[in-house]
Amino acid sequence: MADFVRQSKVRFSDTDYAGIIFYPRYFEGLNATVEDWFAECAGVSFRTLLDEYRLGSPLVSIETTFMKPSRLEDILEYRLNVSRIGASSITFKIETICGNETRMRATLTHVCVQRDVSESAPWPEALRKQFNEALSEAQ
Amino acid sequence: MADFVRQSKVRFSDTDYAGIIFYPRYFEGLNATVEDWFAECAGVSFRTLLDEYRLGSPLVSIETTFMKPSRLEDILEYRLNVSRIGASSITFKIETICGNETRMRATLTHVCVQRDVSESAPWPEALRKQFNEALSEAQ
Amino acid sequence: MADFVRQSKVRFSDTDYAGIIFYPRYFEGLNATVEDWFAECAGVSFRTLLDEYRLGSPLVSIETTFMKPSRLEDILEYRLNVSRIGASSITFKIETICGNETRMRATLTHVCVQRDVSESAPWPEALRKQFNEALSEAQ
Amino acid sequence: MADFVRQSKVRFSDTDYAGIIFYPRYFEGLNATVEDWFAECAGVSFRTLLDEYRLGSPLVSIETTFMKPSRLEDILEYRLNVSRIGASSITFKIETICGNETRMRATLTHVCVQRDVSESAPWPEALRKQFNEALSEAQ
Repeated sequence: MADFVRQSKVRFSDTDYAGIIFYPRYFEGLNATVEDWFAECAGVSFRTLLDEYRLGSPLVSIETTFMKPSRLEDILEYRLNVSRIGASSITFKIETICGNETRMRATLTHVCVQRDVSESAPWPEALRKQFNEALSEAQ
Repeated sequence: MADFVRQSKVRFSDTDYAGIIFYPRYFEGLNATVEDWFAECAGVSFRTLLDEYRLGSPLVSIETTFMKPSRLEDILEYRLNVSRIGASSITFKIETICGNETRMRATLTHVCVQRDVSESAPWPEALRKQFNEALSEAQ
Repeated sequence: MADFVRQSKVRFSDTDYAGIIFYPRYFEGLNATVEDWFAECAGVSFRTLLDEYRLGSPLVSIETTFMKPSRLEDILEYRLNVSRIGASSITFKIETICGNETRMRATLTHVCVQRDVSESAPWPEALRKQFNEALSEAQ
Repeated sequence: MADFVRQSKVRFSDTDYAGIIFYPRYFEGLNATVEDWFAECAGVSFRTLLDEYRLGSPLVSIETTFMKPSRLEDILEYRLNVSRIGASSITFKIETICGNETRMRATLTHVCVQRDVSESAPWPEALRKQFNEALSEAQ
């Protein structure tokens, strides 16, 4: 069971000379999945986070394993699970599936920073609450 | 000491709404560094690998840690070290530096596959020899 | 009235240091719109065109005017009209709208080429028929 | 004779499933060429323009013709000529060459805007002077 699922077709723009998905495009797919989770599940879009909260959420670490290549026009499902909400961080596990096949698995940790100084900051209480509510609803 | 260094400026196209480098662009930077190592050090460009050897070299795993954000017009140095040459794989460690600051560290493993079937294949003997020569020359 | 409409949100990955959409991302949006028109309206996806017909459809010319900048999380509508089906070319007009505002207008001509030699070729009769049917249905 | 030349190799990241350069990547190449002209010839980098002058320079129109496809590892030369410096605009012609072959020609007009309000603004006198000096030196 995933907390959130984003579906996406492998487009012409995602492919390369070898005829498969160019791997940095997967990271754009991961970022888009996290972006949609924030907006659709946690109730705070990246734009609101940046412009109203004056916070950013850069990535600090990511581990990724690629099992099978994805090809033009494959329908991918990015299945996101929140694995840990820290005082100033959030860790996701995302599995990318095509049909019955796992194509990629990633564990990624974003942190909360003050936008203007790029220094670590705790998540505001309101946001932590929304994150936890998003988790309860998903389960 | 690095086996190979690629320098690159953070361009307008690499930045995002938060005013820093958009992290998937780092993976394009890592791939460009590996691409240049193959062509300039190991004596086989990706095009030659794909068209003449009929081999591909997809990524199978990557671990990345981001220390500090990079900003528009920063001059980055991607310092590549080959850490292991396997029968059908190659592992690189790449550190990205700006001035005295480490911005990112990555460990990435590429494998050798037959281009047409995407199945694992051993590196041809000639290529393994070139990889090892590249290492000796770098040290 | 548009022959085909594709909706798309301006993502974090589309923005730049100036806080607006980075203009080359619009061209990815235009290409995605043409890609979807081929697959969904004309009954031939780019993959089928390339792998089964052994044809490509590169762009030969494009004129674009940008009226207003687009911003993070804007919902854009790419409204495509086919303006001319030639013996070996096809011309589209695409208008990009956000709410009541026109953000961009483009006129773009793709040509049919033999995939392996990149030489101009007439559209196969079956495809021309499908293109014309797509137009009749849209009107 | 060009006012400014930027050389660039077609990278793996620039190619697509059809085995040639993906056309939106050309627009990244054009933007990089204009970016370098500002920094290296006109004496004002995009970052300085945005952060110190509080000005942006979005594109308002572009016409592009593609003559021949570019392929992985081609060495491209983007040859830029300034064709008109207006009160609040600047028009470039850029020809992209590989060896003796013209691959693409573009005419593009950027305008000067106040960064915070995206409204047209005249170029500051100091900048106009630098633009004109860049032209004299190139000729």
